Amino acid sequence: MSYNLLKGKRGIIFGALDANSIAWKTAERVHEEGGTFVLTNAPIALRMGTINELAEKTGSQVIPADATKIEDLENLVEKAMEVLGGKIDFVLHSIGMSVNVRKGNAYTSQNYDYTHKGWDVSAVSFHKTMSVLYNKDAMTEWGSIVALTYMAAQRVFPDYNDMADNKAYLESIARSFGYFFGRDKNVRVNTISQSPTPTTAGQGVKGFDGFIAYAEKMSPLGNATAEDCANYTIAMFSDLTKRVTLQNLFNDGGFSNMGVSTAVMDKFTE
Amino acid sequence: MSYNLLKGKRGIIFGALDANSIAWKTAERVHEEGGTFVLTNAPIALRMGTINELAEKTGSQVIPADATKIEDLENLVEKAMEVLGGKIDFVLHSIGMSVNVRKGNAYTSQNYDYTHKGWDVSAVSFHKTMSVLYNKDAMTEWGSIVALTYMAAQRVFPDYNDMADNKAYLESIARSFGYFFGRDKNVRVNTISQSPTPTTAGQGVKGFDGFIAYAEKMSPLGNATAEDCANYTIAMFSDLTKRVTLQNLFNDGGFSNMGVSTAVMDKFTE
Amino acid sequence: MSYNLLKGKRGIIFGALDANSIAWKTAERVHEEGGTFVLTNAPIALRMGTINELAEKTGSQVIPADATKIEDLENLVEKAMEVLGGKIDFVLHSIGMSVNVRKGNAYTSQNYDYTHKGWDVSAVSFHKTMSVLYNKDAMTEWGSIVALTYMAAQRVFPDYNDMADNKAYLESIARSFGYFFGRDKNVRVNTISQSPTPTTAGQGVKGFDGFIAYAEKMSPLGNATAEDCANYTIAMFSDLTKRVTLQNLFNDGGFSNMGVSTAVMDKFTE
Amino acid sequence: MSYNLLKGKRGIIFGALDANSIAWKTAERVHEEGGTFVLTNAPIALRMGTINELAEKTGSQVIPADATKIEDLENLVEKAMEVLGGKIDFVLHSIGMSVNVRKGNAYTSQNYDYTHKGWDVSAVSFHKTMSVLYNKDAMTEWGSIVALTYMAAQRVFPDYNDMADNKAYLESIARSFGYFFGRDKNVRVNTISQSPTPTTAGQGVKGFDGFIAYAEKMSPLGNATAEDCANYTIAMFSDLTKRVTLQNLFNDGGFSNMGVSTAVMDKFTE
Repeated sequence: MSYNLLKGKRGIIFGALDANSIAWKTAERVHEEGGTFVLTNAPIALRMGTINELAEKTGSQVIPADATKIEDLENLVEKAMEVLGGKIDFVLHSIGMSVNVRKGNAYTSQNYDYTHKGWDVSAVSFHKTMSVLYNKDAMTEWGSIVALTYMAAQRVFPDYNDMADNKAYLESIARSFGYFFGRDKNVRVNTISQSPTPTTAGQGVKGFDGFIAYAEKMSPLGNATAEDCANYTIAMFSDLTKRVTLQNLFNDGGFSNMGVSTAVMDKFTE
Repeated sequence: MSYNLLKGKRGIIFGALDANSIAWKTAERVHEEGGTFVLTNAPIALRMGTINELAEKTGSQVIPADATKIEDLENLVEKAMEVLGGKIDFVLHSIGMSVNVRKGNAYTSQNYDYTHKGWDVSAVSFHKTMSVLYNKDAMTEWGSIVALTYMAAQRVFPDYNDMADNKAYLESIARSFGYFFGRDKNVRVNTISQSPTPTTAGQGVKGFDGFIAYAEKMSPLGNATAEDCANYTIAMFSDLTKRVTLQNLFNDGGFSNMGVSTAVMDKFTE
Repeated sequence: MSYNLLKGKRGIIFGALDANSIAWKTAERVHEEGGTFVLTNAPIALRMGTINELAEKTGSQVIPADATKIEDLENLVEKAMEVLGGKIDFVLHSIGMSVNVRKGNAYTSQNYDYTHKGWDVSAVSFHKTMSVLYNKDAMTEWGSIVALTYMAAQRVFPDYNDMADNKAYLESIARSFGYFFGRDKNVRVNTISQSPTPTTAGQGVKGFDGFIAYAEKMSPLGNATAEDCANYTIAMFSDLTKRVTLQNLFNDGGFSNMGVSTAVMDKFTE
Repeated sequence: MSYNLLKGKRGIIFGALDANSIAWKTAERVHEEGGTFVLTNAPIALRMGTINELAEKTGSQVIPADATKIEDLENLVEKAMEVLGGKIDFVLHSIGMSVNVRKGNAYTSQNYDYTHKGWDVSAVSFHKTMSVLYNKDAMTEWGSIVALTYMAAQRVFPDYNDMADNKAYLESIARSFGYFFGRDKNVRVNTISQSPTPTTAGQGVKGFDGFIAYAEKMSPLGNATAEDCANYTIAMFSDLTKRVTLQNLFNDGGFSNMGVSTAVMDKFTE
C-alpha cells in the first residue's frame, strides 16, 4: 500500500541490520510513502548486516555512526541534512543490546561493566541522538521522533534481563526529552512498544520461540509483526498525529491490557 | 490534506451535533480520505444540532438512533449496511452527557437517577453498540472501533463530576469487549483520550475556559484540537494500525505525562 | 499477632458473609488490633450467611443495610456512631455481585437490567456510602476508607464479565470522591486490589479454580490470602498510612507487574 | 507512637545524612518499633552529615560503604549480619544524586560522564545491594526491601533532570530483581514514591520551594512529610504487608492521581 503520507519528509533511520529488522521494514514503508532518509548503524553492525541492499533499494545513503559517540552523531546529523537537503522531519531509534544477555549472565549476577555498556548503547544513545538534534536545531517544527521499546519496561519478563531496565530508562528519556523538544521546538517524541518480534536481535533472548507462542495466545489479535510496527511508525511520522507526544504506544495485538486469555487458560488447564 | 487512507471503507459516526463537534470534524476528514458512512445521533440531538448540513456536505445519510436502546441500534446497523452496501469497517462513538453536571449537582451530592441516566448514555451505550455489531456479525475483519474519552478516567478533575466515573466505565468496556471482538472477529477497539476541546458539549462543564488555558500551559505541544483528534482517529481507522487494540490513546499535546511544566510553575510562582 | 494498631478506632465493615469472606477476616483482625466496629450486610446476605457468629466473637452489633438505598445507609451511619460512641475512623466496603455472571450471560450478550443491578450494588453503593458519610460529617479527621477491588479493572480476565467494568467504576469513585473527602475532611480513600481469593462469592466465577492456580504460578510470592488482605487493610486503617490516598493498592504477590513468570512459561512450553 | 511492629527484626538503612533525611526519620521510627539495624552511607556522606548522633540515639553501628562498590557492600552485609546476630529482615535504600543537577547542566546538555555517575549512584547501587544480599542468601524469608523514589519516573518535572531517568531505572530494578527475590527467597521488593520533601538533598533541585508549594496545593491531603514516609516504610517492613511486592507505592497526599485541584485552578485563574 502507499498513500504518500510522508511525501517531502526527510529522516534518519537507525538500526536496520538485515531484512528481519523492524527498522528495515520501516525504511521500506517510509520509501513507499514518499519519504527520503539516510540509514545509519554502528560500523560493526554495518559489517555484520546487509544494509547496502536496503540503501540501494530505497535510494538512500548509509552514514556510519556509533550512537554512543556524540561526534559520530554530530557528523551523522550534519551529513544527513546535507544529503537530504534540509532539516529532519522524522527519526527512528531502533537500537538495543545487552552484553549480559549475550554472555549468558543471570539478571541477579550481572557484570556491571556489561550493564553499563548495554545501558549506554540501548538507552543513553537515544538521549545523545536527541541532544545533537536539539542543540543543532536540526528538526523541523512538528517533526516526529520514535524509539522502539518493549513492555518489559513495565512488567517482568524474566529472560529479558537488564534490557528491561534499559527500556525503562529509554522510555523515561522519551518523556523527559520529549517535554523540552515539544516546548522549545514543537517536535513530538514517542516510543512504540512492540510485540516480541522474530528479528535477528530478538532471537538472542533465551526461550524466545516459546515466548512468542505465549504472547500470540495471550493477544486477542495475535502478535504484531515487523510490518505492523512499520505501519504504526508511518502513522506516527505522518501529520495525522501531530499532537501525540510523550506517549508509550503499545503495538501488540492487545497483550499489554490482558490479564489472561481463554487460549492461555485452555493451555494451562488442559 | 487527503491520502485516500479510507478509500472503500464504510462506517458509522455517532455524535456529530454541530460544527464544533469532534465527530463532525472526523466525519469531514473521513470523507476527505475516501470513506463513506452514515451519521447518527439521538432524535433530540438531531433537532438541536445542524447535522443535515454535514450530511449534505459529505453525501451521507442520517439515521436517528437513541444509543441507549438496542432496537434503535439494531435498526441503525441494519440500515447502515444496506445504505453503504456492505459490512462496517469503522465506528466512532462520541457520546457523553451528565445530568448531574447539567443540573449543577455537586459530585458529593448526586441525584442517583441522574447518575444512572448519565452512565447509560455515556458508557453503556458503547457496550450496546458493540453488542449489536458483534451479535449481528456486522463488522469486517480488521475493522476498527473508536470511542472518545477523557483523562478524568485516570486522574481527578474536580468539575468533571460523574463523567469521570462514566469514562472509566467506558474505557473498561473498550478493553473487555475489545478482547472478545479481537479474539472472535479480528476487530480492534480503542479509546482516544482527547485534550479538553471547546465543543458545545464541553462548554457545559464549569470553569471550562480556565481549565483549557491551564491544560494549554501544561502541555508541551499545547492542547490537541478537534481537527487533531479527527486526524488521529483517521489513523486508527486506517490499515496502518491493524494490531493496535484495547488501548487508551492520549491525544493531548503531552499533558497526560506531565507532572508540572515550566509554564505552570511560572504562573504559579509569579 | 496483635499490635494495638487500631486501639480506640471505630468503624463500619460491609460484606462479611461467612468465614471465607475477606471482610470476615478483616473484622477478626481489626478486633485483635483493638478496633471496635459495627457489621453490616444486605438483609438477604444476613440470612444466607453466618454473620451473627462473627458479631458474637468480636462483640459487635449487626446493623442491616441495603447499600443501594440511601435511607438504609443513613440509618446505618447514625446507628453506628451511636453504638460506637463517636465518629467513624475506618470503613471497609467489600461488596460485589454480577447478575449477568450468576445467570450465565456472556459478556457480549448482557441483560442490561442485570448490568444496571450489578453496577448499582457493586460500584454505586460505594459512592452512596461515602456520600452519606461525607454529608453527615461522620468521619473523623485522618479517617480511612477502603474498598476491595480486582485487577480486572485494568486488564482483561474474560470470565470476570461485567464485574470488570463495575470495578473500574468503583476505582474511579475512590479517586473522585477521595479528592473531596481529602480536601474537605482530611479523610483518605483507597482501594485494595486483591489476588483471586477462594471466597464464597469468588467461587461463582466460571473456571475459578484453574484461574487461582494460574495466578499462583504467575505471582512471585504466590496469591495473597484473605488473611494477607486483612493485614494490609489494617495497615491502611492505621495511622501509619495517613497521607496515602486515591491509590489502588495491589495485594497480589506481585501478579500485577508480571509479564510472564518462569513457572507459567514452563507449564506452557512443557 | 509505638506498636512493636518490628520487634526482633534486623535491618540495614542506607542514606541517613542528617536529621532532615527520610532515612533518618525512618531509623528513628524503626527503633521505636523495636527493630535493630546498622546504618550505612558513603564515606564522604558520613563526613558531611551527622550520622553518629543517630547511631548513638538508636544504639546502632555505622558501617561505611560506597554503594557503587560490590566489595564495600559485601563487607557491609557480612558485618551487619555479624553485628545484628542473624540474617536481614529489612533494607531501606535512600540514595540519589545527580552530578548534572549539582553542576547546573540542562537536561538537554548533559555531561555524559556525570550522567553515568548519577545513574550508578542513584539506581545501579540498588541492583548491587540486592545482588549482594541475594547471592549471599542474607535475607530472611518474607523479608522486605524498600527503595525511595519519585514520581518523575512516570511524569515530567522539568527541574528533576536526569534523576527522572535514574528513578525510572531504579523502579524497573525493583520489579526485575523483585521477581527473582520473590520467587527464590520469598522476599518482597517495593519502592515508595514520596511527595517532594525538604531534605538536604532535595533542596539542591532548582525552584524546590515553589514546587513544594505547588505540590501542596495539588494534593488533597497535602504533601506527605518525612515522618509520613517513615511510617509507611514501617508498614512495608512489618508482617502486615507480606504479599505486597513489585509495587511502586505513592505516599503523596494523592498528588499522583490528580489532574488538577480546585486550589491550583484558583491560583491559576485568579
